[in-house]
Amino acid sequence: MRNLIDDHEDRLVVSKMLKGAVMAHPNLKKLDHINSVVSSPNDRQVVLISGGGSGHEPLDLGYVGAGALDAAIVGDIFIPPSAEQIVQTVQYFGNKRPILFIVKNFAADRNNFLKASEVLREQGYVVEILIVDDDRSVDPETKEPRRRGVAGTIFIHKLLGAAADKDYSMAQLLELGKKAIANLSTLGVALSGAEIPNRQLESFQLNSDEIAYGIGIHGEKGYRTEKYQSFERLSRELVNKLYAVSGSESGTSIAILVNGLGTLPLMDQFVFTRSVVNLFELKGLHPELVKTGNYLTSYNMTGISITLFKIEDPNWIKLLNYDTTAFAWQ
Amino acid sequence: MRNLIDDHEDRLVVSKMLKGAVMAHPNLKKLDHINSVVSSPNDRQVVLISGGGSGHEPLDLGYVGAGALDAAIVGDIFIPPSAEQIVQTVQYFGNKRPILFIVKNFAADRNNFLKASEVLREQGYVVEILIVDDDRSVDPETKEPRRRGVAGTIFIHKLLGAAADKDYSMAQLLELGKKAIANLSTLGVALSGAEIPNRQLESFQLNSDEIAYGIGIHGEKGYRTEKYQSFERLSRELVNKLYAVSGSESGTSIAILVNGLGTLPLMDQFVFTRSVVNLFELKGLHPELVKTGNYLTSYNMTGISITLFKIEDPNWIKLLNYDTTAFAWQ
Repeated sequence: MRNLIDDHEDRLVVSKMLKGAVMAHPNLKKLDHINSVVSSPNDRQVVLISGGGSGHEPLDLGYVGAGALDAAIVGDIFIPPSAEQIVQTVQYFGNKRPILFIVKNFAADRNNFLKASEVLREQGYVVEILIVDDDRSVDPETKEPRRRGVAGTIFIHKLLGAAADKDYSMAQLLELGKKAIANLSTLGVALSGAEIPNRQLESFQLNSDEIAYGIGIHGEKGYRTEKYQSFERLSRELVNKLYAVSGSESGTSIAILVNGLGTLPLMDQFVFTRSVVNLFELKGLHPELVKTGNYLTSYNMTGISITLFKIEDPNWIKLLNYDTTAFAWQ
Repeated sequence: MRNLIDDHEDRLVVSKMLKGAVMAHPNLKKLDHINSVVSSPNDRQVVLISGGGSGHEPLDLGYVGAGALDAAIVGDIFIPPSAEQIVQTVQYFGNKRPILFIVKNFAADRNNFLKASEVLREQGYVVEILIVDDDRSVDPETKEPRRRGVAGTIFIHKLLGAAADKDYSMAQLLELGKKAIANLSTLGVALSGAEIPNRQLESFQLNSDEIAYGIGIHGEKGYRTEKYQSFERLSRELVNKLYAVSGSESGTSIAILVNGLGTLPLMDQFVFTRSVVNLFELKGLHPELVKTGNYLTSYNMTGISITLFKIEDPNWIKLLNYDTTAFAWQ
């Protein structure tokens, strides 16, 4: 057996999860009758909100807190929150302050947040949307870039959360967010597909000795499958690719995220981190901040992703290191 | 595939892991040529050290830092550090301050720490040992208590780490530690055995619909195996047992740890937390602190444990909530 949850289609699963999460993290509050989690009230200029399907914990709820998001809107497993849920969550904050949505680049997520924005604007809200599209995988058939929103989004949550605490205006947050997202590249590799018991996912299947490059966080196919050889070879492949697509140059300051996608032991993640950091250093890049752990997962998936974040401005490192109560930013 | 590490018998795996860990956590330092991790120098009265086999990450290295341990001594996978490694690690701190070892109750761990203590005392060190024996499982044949050291040890790391920061003496730390350990009860359940690729473990095997109660963190057999029915039934069974063995009474203040043993999704852990906390409350206990997450794991194991910590003294909650830089205490 892989799971304790007996019925993944039970509509109450997400609500039960959030009730458990706020017991463990009393700085968070679950809204009544809505699967959204909010932080303590504050007087920042802008209200920062993200959200998406569940099954990716600790994302997004683990990035709510002081120096981080004001709220996370949580959908059913692998299903984005409805426009209605988004509107209801925003109404909790009222229309006195502008609202900034940080949205991962999936069509369904984008549509629901866009629809909600239209409704909210009619109600007198000022709403802006930032789309995070850090995935550097390509479609296996068309070879077109896919630019989904994957693990790099946690750097955006943290960066903008700290900036909001320093009382940045909406215009400043948007400028910072767009610049940062343009410098964000993520590539993932899977050792197994994602799996939700009793639900048919269009997830890839792998033989027990195979890995898949460039997979998505809902089990979307990667761009290549091959026999696994060694973590040194895997880290070389991913580092070379990220170095090339990000347009990095020797001397660039970077932040690195080595993200466990679910069931991969932390031991493996740390061993991989050493290999990846050494390879970036060999290319002349300067890692100023390294994060390793399960920051964004896919339910029952075994895999790992690397995010390369080019640091254009030394202030970004200060913002990333700024104090937060968000539990998933260890 | 479940892992990225290609050779789990490679003696360098642990050293590579620790090098990766200190890249991600620059407040930690790995000793040269020794698989031990230490915190920044401080002037506390007592040096607090724990250790054990690896394959349980984030234990123990994730509990090193300000307000926590001074060092973690890390053995090979599921193998405790040698007496020699323990001695060498302690020598890094010198013999000016007394040393307190926090040791999990496994024969091999105890023996190696005892041997090291003898050597160190001959070298002029003052050394004391606290044995953590929070496991409330029983031997399936003799029905004798097993009292292994399992997840509850992280409460001891945190409690004594905070107390050491408040400059408790060795006598005070020993008194606090013994009292706390006497109030600590853990019971675990597995949905799969532990597994290290290419190594034969004496781990139990489970059918895909079975769970095992009272398993150990190296794959030791539990006291009962049954078909899984629901997380409500499972939480009732574990809560009833812990309530009984701990001698809790209505009105008792408690801390609860819901610990993921490895590959169980955080969603399942939070859903389980809600159920467990509600049941303890129905018994009249007062949960003052709840922790949920992967605090002590077993390599490739799917499972969960609950620790019930009876709070005899309100000061214990303050110590558990005291600031720390230890990365695993989120």
